[in-house]
Amino acid sequence: MTTPIMSRAEAAELVKAARIRRGVSWSAIAEELGTPLVWTTAALLGQHPMTAEQAGRVCRMLDLEEAVAESLRTRPARGTDEALMSDPTVYRFVEALSVYAPALKELVHEEFGDGIMSAINFRVDLARRPAPEGDRVVVTFDGKFLDNKW
Amino acid sequence: MTTPIMSRAEAAELVKAARIRRGVSWSAIAEELGTPLVWTTAALLGQHPMTAEQAGRVCRMLDLEEAVAESLRTRPARGTDEALMSDPTVYRFVEALSVYAPALKELVHEEFGDGIMSAINFRVDLARRPAPEGDRVVVTFDGKFLDNKW
Amino acid sequence: MTTPIMSRAEAAELVKAARIRRGVSWSAIAEELGTPLVWTTAALLGQHPMTAEQAGRVCRMLDLEEAVAESLRTRPARGTDEALMSDPTVYRFVEALSVYAPALKELVHEEFGDGIMSAINFRVDLARRPAPEGDRVVVTFDGKFLDNKW
Amino acid sequence: MTTPIMSRAEAAELVKAARIRRGVSWSAIAEELGTPLVWTTAALLGQHPMTAEQAGRVCRMLDLEEAVAESLRTRPARGTDEALMSDPTVYRFVEALSVYAPALKELVHEEFGDGIMSAINFRVDLARRPAPEGDRVVVTFDGKFLDNKW
Amino acid sequence: MTTPIMSRAEAAELVKAARIRRGVSWSAIAEELGTPLVWTTAALLGQHPMTAEQAGRVCRMLDLEEAVAESLRTRPARGTDEALMSDPTVYRFVEALSVYAPALKELVHEEFGDGIMSAINFRVDLARRPAPEGDRVVVTFDGKFLDNKW
Amino acid sequence: MTTPIMSRAEAAELVKAARIRRGVSWSAIAEELGTPLVWTTAALLGQHPMTAEQAGRVCRMLDLEEAVAESLRTRPARGTDEALMSDPTVYRFVEALSVYAPALKELVHEEFGDGIMSAINFRVDLARRPAPEGDRVVVTFDGKFLDNKW
Amino acid sequence: MTTPIMSRAEAAELVKAARIRRGVSWSAIAEELGTPLVWTTAALLGQHPMTAEQAGRVCRMLDLEEAVAESLRTRPARGTDEALMSDPTVYRFVEALSVYAPALKELVHEEFGDGIMSAINFRVDLARRPAPEGDRVVVTFDGKFLDNKW
Amino acid sequence: MTTPIMSRAEAAELVKAARIRRGVSWSAIAEELGTPLVWTTAALLGQHPMTAEQAGRVCRMLDLEEAVAESLRTRPARGTDEALMSDPTVYRFVEALSVYAPALKELVHEEFGDGIMSAINFRVDLARRPAPEGDRVVVTFDGKFLDNKW
Amino acid sequence: MTTPIMSRAEAAELVKAARIRRGVSWSAIAEELGTPLVWTTAALLGQHPMTAEQAGRVCRMLDLEEAVAESLRTRPARGTDEALMSDPTVYRFVEALSVYAPALKELVHEEFGDGIMSAINFRVDLARRPAPEGDRVVVTFDGKFLDNKW
Amino acid sequence: MTTPIMSRAEAAELVKAARIRRGVSWSAIAEELGTPLVWTTAALLGQHPMTAEQAGRVCRMLDLEEAVAESLRTRPARGTDEALMSDPTVYRFVEALSVYAPALKELVHEEFGDGIMSAINFRVDLARRPAPEGDRVVVTFDGKFLDNKW
Repeated sequence: MTTPIMSRAEAAELVKAARIRRGVSWSAIAEELGTPLVWTTAALLGQHPMTAEQAGRVCRMLDLEEAVAESLRTRPARGTDEALMSDPTVYRFVEALSVYAPALKELVHEEFGDGIMSAINFRVDLARRPAPEGDRVVVTFDGKFLDNKW
Repeated sequence: MTTPIMSRAEAAELVKAARIRRGVSWSAIAEELGTPLVWTTAALLGQHPMTAEQAGRVCRMLDLEEAVAESLRTRPARGTDEALMSDPTVYRFVEALSVYAPALKELVHEEFGDGIMSAINFRVDLARRPAPEGDRVVVTFDGKFLDNKW
Repeated sequence: MTTPIMSRAEAAELVKAARIRRGVSWSAIAEELGTPLVWTTAALLGQHPMTAEQAGRVCRMLDLEEAVAESLRTRPARGTDEALMSDPTVYRFVEALSVYAPALKELVHEEFGDGIMSAINFRVDLARRPAPEGDRVVVTFDGKFLDNKW
Repeated sequence: MTTPIMSRAEAAELVKAARIRRGVSWSAIAEELGTPLVWTTAALLGQHPMTAEQAGRVCRMLDLEEAVAESLRTRPARGTDEALMSDPTVYRFVEALSVYAPALKELVHEEFGDGIMSAINFRVDLARRPAPEGDRVVVTFDGKFLDNKW
Repeated sequence: MTTPIMSRAEAAELVKAARIRRGVSWSAIAEELGTPLVWTTAALLGQHPMTAEQAGRVCRMLDLEEAVAESLRTRPARGTDEALMSDPTVYRFVEALSVYAPALKELVHEEFGDGIMSAINFRVDLARRPAPEGDRVVVTFDGKFLDNKW
Repeated sequence: MTTPIMSRAEAAELVKAARIRRGVSWSAIAEELGTPLVWTTAALLGQHPMTAEQAGRVCRMLDLEEAVAESLRTRPARGTDEALMSDPTVYRFVEALSVYAPALKELVHEEFGDGIMSAINFRVDLARRPAPEGDRVVVTFDGKFLDNKW
Repeated sequence: MTTPIMSRAEAAELVKAARIRRGVSWSAIAEELGTPLVWTTAALLGQHPMTAEQAGRVCRMLDLEEAVAESLRTRPARGTDEALMSDPTVYRFVEALSVYAPALKELVHEEFGDGIMSAINFRVDLARRPAPEGDRVVVTFDGKFLDNKW
Repeated sequence: MTTPIMSRAEAAELVKAARIRRGVSWSAIAEELGTPLVWTTAALLGQHPMTAEQAGRVCRMLDLEEAVAESLRTRPARGTDEALMSDPTVYRFVEALSVYAPALKELVHEEFGDGIMSAINFRVDLARRPAPEGDRVVVTFDGKFLDNKW
Repeated sequence: MTTPIMSRAEAAELVKAARIRRGVSWSAIAEELGTPLVWTTAALLGQHPMTAEQAGRVCRMLDLEEAVAESLRTRPARGTDEALMSDPTVYRFVEALSVYAPALKELVHEEFGDGIMSAINFRVDLARRPAPEGDRVVVTFDGKFLDNKW
Repeated sequence: MTTPIMSRAEAAELVKAARIRRGVSWSAIAEELGTPLVWTTAALLGQHPMTAEQAGRVCRMLDLEEAVAESLRTRPARGTDEALMSDPTVYRFVEALSVYAPALKELVHEEFGDGIMSAINFRVDLARRPAPEGDRVVVTFDGKFLDNKW
């Protein structure tokens, strides 16, 4: 009898459980795969398909069953449940957009013309920057400029 | 008879009108004030109070009346109208969060512990990065890490 | 004891699982059935009833049980879960409507008079159009004009 | 005293009023400007900036004041008021997406891989196709494929 | 151990499954019960309580277990899930109200005075009316007029 | 200087004011125009364009200015403000749909096959039906059946 | 030139202003009209049409212009703006329903059978009931029972 | 192994099932407990905690297991699912508030001053009042007046 | 001709304008009136009625016209526009509730029994508490416990 | 086979069940852990991670299985289900914010300047304050002031 493919959400829960129980960091997984840290974490949380090679390697590293690997290879419906968007750690990013989005729009247009920063030809990086009054979280959004073109 | 202080939204419309009619860029205003580019633009769009000195200088530069300066000095109710959040240039930032927010949460916790990136002790920068296949928009969110502390 | 008919959503999950595991493309299924590609995919995802003949043939091709075929024959409640509408691949269509809908309304009226493009006497096609700077996705909506008629 | 720039919505109302009173069709305007029909209509309804040349020519053609031309040159906040999305002529497009969006997502991925149809490097066309049982509205969405690329 | 009464939604699913598998039409059920067609269908879909006699007869006709009959006898929480309201077959009724509701309000008041059409002392009928250019769906709402009365 | 065309909502308010002040019923207007009662009322409330002939005759009958007639000739964005949908006289229709919509869907499919009642090739009638226990409001929705057709 | 009829909301604001400035209570108005207190207040706030006699008498009592009387005679779109529903004095009624509505439904059915309390053949009363530990607000909803009747 | 306490919603379903199967009315339960009718029904539907004595007695009367009694003793999160609020029997109360809430606010203030009717020091009663033209449902809300007090 | 009473929102804007232009702090106003600081500020922002004495004194202090005083004496519809709730300074209070509300509910019940903290017999205080690592905002909610009482 | 980590919501249900069955108060748990009362309750309800030491001690005290302890150690997605926010005990806090939030914003700015009360470097306390006319619930929010700092 055919069974459905495990959902990306279930696969993510199993990856998180195995990762915590084995004491494996997201960085260690990214290093093992040779893939960027934010991409790797996002992919395992259900936002990107992995190649068979990548999915297999993660599952071997965390001793996860083949059904997880099968799920990780699928092309997901991307996006995040609204409830998580109000978690304080996440919400600060939402708030920053709510304050700075109109300015970013003005400045993208002033610097590049009528168009957008691609969210598809796009990468995100997170870094720690030491500072005297307390270390800082530095998140970089880096996307190709696409101009409106008929 | 007392009149209300001009709203920040009205002041922003007048700043935009004067800026466009005189051909003054946001960068030129920021340079005149000696303040960071994104901060300056956001402040003039209604998201930050300006000092009397800053508000006065902007109004002289753009030949705007004192009522605009008075408005620019007030502490605003921050935030952006929902309708603007679906403008494509703005929406790509919303979409990027919707795809990467869970990963950013995991990695803030892995790197810094249980806490958040401050959106108050915080700065944003926008830059153009040349690239062979097309220049890129690079937006940096840079906030102090605050850990949960009772 | 009577059991409910398998929901169209469950049937779609099983079709997707079997299709992926056997490496069968949507095009191959459409070809096997002799039905249009977008129609076939939409029907299998739960948006159209299939004839007994069609449902049976798909299930034999993918080795799916009779309960799936029974489900595929039912007349569905059509529509898509809101969450999927913000997946980036889907959202671009939503955004295009949000930008061009008022123009399309004006032009339907100018060209045809007071009425609508039917979404029932209607077909959709998706094609790849090669172009020097990168291939293009071409989606055609083709519906009978219906004029307002008392 | 500085006055705000006329909003794109007000400008659109004036364009519509002048167009109707003079009996000028959208096609005639597009022809005058030498620009595509859907683009021209969308731009005049407030979705795209026009060049000074284009805005000036439209205003001369419809005998509209300079304030309208000034508005038409601005870069707009794109999007459509929710209320208009339930007008029947518009809603049929929304409904078509609600029925076919999941199929379009599957087929974009099958044909092109993991990515999207751009809504920025993008054009829309509307045509009338004669058919024995009643003419058909044919709307074509044509956007460059962008693949997910880190 | 006490078990909950089967929900009206579950009972409706079982009625639909049995009806389809046995090839019994809604009309045939209504005829068997001697009850109006729309009432009967609505009741079996969970919108009205049935008498013990009616519930028993339906279950015998469709060979459904006593638990279904018990459920059909309960007084339901009436109403329909929002998701179904956007199914195209249903939505056309919603759209018709959205276009004609203000006119119906004016005319109820003009013809009857200040009051309402009861939705409780109320019946609905659906009929097919042959017409040269295609048969028509004719739905009649027929409710007692109730005038505002303190 | 160009002025915008009066909105359909404003025109409707003026029609209502003139109608009440002169003591002219909706029926009298419909009779004067020789158009169906519900159509006429809906059109004057902003849901349908009128011909120049019809708009002119209404304005002469109610002594309304040409600007109202101009507005009545435009093709409107159809639909009703959400707030009015909860007025009790209107809400009973909404409630009736909420109770009977699933049954109507089942029966449209059983009687006509997979398709819809058109809301475009469509008419509505309202009548008073005397009954011993109180007169009844009878509203008839009458639309052409359209079957799903690729 | 025709002017619109003053909205019921504007008329209510003027009634409230005149009432406060003259120190006239709602009770005094109800007494003057010989109408029930809650009905009178609701009618003046825009929820019921008044007869010409009633509207005229209120306007003379409060020295309000004829335009207010004209407005008070119109049949209103009933209902209350959502924002007012969260005023604490109003919200306690909302909360009481949220806690007791399911019980009221059960008990209406147990006592009367399958039906509703009419909100149209309906009256509301508000009284003060002295009690040792503080006087009590007693609000009575009194509506005719209507049973579901096809 | 610890098991969660049965939810109040599940307990309510079991109380309803046992009550119906045994033919026990809500009144009979209230009489058995010596508690007010509306309070008793609301409590059993999940809106109030019962004492151990009360919960035990209900469970013995309806032959329900101890797990139900344990649930009935817990302090609930009060409130009702939005879906039930549009059931017609419930909705009439919602509608009555929507029409009379502003009047009730005015009259509470006129009679008692600036404050509220408590929804906590509060009771509800439901009664049948015979009337020549049909019996009436009489629901009384009776709460202590609380005045705003700093 | 009667004019409406100035809305509490307009009055608040005028108070804010006069306060800022004259350099008068909220504390100075509270001191002048001899009323608590948070109460005074909330009242002037539109959340409480003032006595004639209080309203008069504020208007003399800020040189505001009688129309403002008249407005300040009215009993307001209490509550805050949703948009302001996402201003960061306000949102932190919302977030704190979203994190701690379930715990507060448990502890109110554990300490006081089944009931609530009154929001009517209630006061709020805001203080600055010096601390070595940065001063703290201390906000105290202080309301009478009310227990559920039938 | 890997199993997911028990969700914080499930763990909270088990803690509540064990706590009630054993008659252990939240205070007793806080005392056992030596942690503040509100923090402890919030943490066990799923809003804060516990250390291994804390989680272990709670589970031994309540005889809960290791799976609960594992869950309590995870970093949660913070926030509360919307439904609970309208429970009366919780809602009074929401209402207090809705009335006093604008005043708190003004006063935070007047006393501290442009910034916020941190909700991260933050603590909450709940106390009982005896008072002649009835004891009072006193809830203190105490957060570090953070000023807007680029």
